[in-house]
Amino acid sequence: MKLMEQMILKDGKVLPGGILKVGSFLNQQIDTELLAAMGEEIKRLYAGDHVTKILTIESSGIAIAAAAGMAMQVPVVFAKKHKTSNVDGEVYSSVVHSFTHGTDYNVVVSRDYIRPDDRILLVDDFLASGSALEGLIELADAAGAEVVGVAIAIEKCFQGGGDELRAKGVRIESLAMIDAMDDDGGVSFRPQPEA
Amino acid sequence: MKLMEQMILKDGKVLPGGILKVGSFLNQQIDTELLAAMGEEIKRLYAGDHVTKILTIESSGIAIAAAAGMAMQVPVVFAKKHKTSNVDGEVYSSVVHSFTHGTDYNVVVSRDYIRPDDRILLVDDFLASGSALEGLIELADAAGAEVVGVAIAIEKCFQGGGDELRAKGVRIESLAMIDAMDDDGGVSFRPQPEA
Repeated sequence: MKLMEQMILKDGKVLPGGILKVGSFLNQQIDTELLAAMGEEIKRLYAGDHVTKILTIESSGIAIAAAAGMAMQVPVVFAKKHKTSNVDGEVYSSVVHSFTHGTDYNVVVSRDYIRPDDRILLVDDFLASGSALEGLIELADAAGAEVVGVAIAIEKCFQGGGDELRAKGVRIESLAMIDAMDDDGGVSFRPQPEA
Repeated sequence: MKLMEQMILKDGKVLPGGILKVGSFLNQQIDTELLAAMGEEIKRLYAGDHVTKILTIESSGIAIAAAAGMAMQVPVVFAKKHKTSNVDGEVYSSVVHSFTHGTDYNVVVSRDYIRPDDRILLVDDFLASGSALEGLIELADAAGAEVVGVAIAIEKCFQGGGDELRAKGVRIESLAMIDAMDDDGGVSFRPQPEA
């Protein structure tokens, strides 16, 4: 998605250690024109796939999931993060390792909101190691629902999680795919098919 | 907003202690047809007020703020919750008391994303005691920005926060205003002017 790449080049900030700051347009502050375009692009990518529900994870996935859900006219469910594993039987739960913070946390979602006949589209802002995504896939699996695919705003391909999941057969559509980031602030994108 | 009242009556669950569960359509799972209608209604309510930015608080305010921001074509900023007061000089910060959890937490937002010339619309899912809203008003005040008003999905009028803020001159538009909830599950709404 050219608009996303342009926004990253224009307003993203590359920090040492493979960190990309997009707080001015994607998280913390959200450019709603970009957000609406992302919703439409995700709708286009998964048109005809009979998605029944979008599943995301709090907090920074919610706006993107909401935009996609409104465009696709399907409900959005967001999994919550919990520090403790003290969850009851009314939820599905999985453990996610945060490489950023070096800790584990639980993602939980009520059993009421994912059904065996759901065709789930997973949505998140970033894909790096893929551990958050694996947690969401586990939640959908636990519910017996089918994961139709994944839609990501920005994939950091150089961290490998996306290609590992693709190798396992997961369909992943990332609106911008970053192959490399230089310490001097340069960003190179993986070429993508045009719409 | 009749649609919101209807959803509360149809799918909301009243629990003892003044708790209203709306997880099936407003938080955790989000009805995106309702969400889009909320965005349009908030746009209608604040048409002509020259809102430049929407400010909300993670997590459950984000989807509503995103819908309103897309409808009104203004950026959305979300304040983050922090347990510690260990915040640096690059953010505005205020303390919020959670009556639900009996604890205090900090809400912070980067100084880059609220400007003195901003005309801010505050958006959140619930208004009860009003403490989260007071925290957001403090953030906007600290930035020297003007708070044009507030848009809330569901106000629990019987908890008093909304009317206290109105008495201080804050404009508050709530899409559903609950005057009373009975232990047997009954909900009565405060009459509102029709669109």
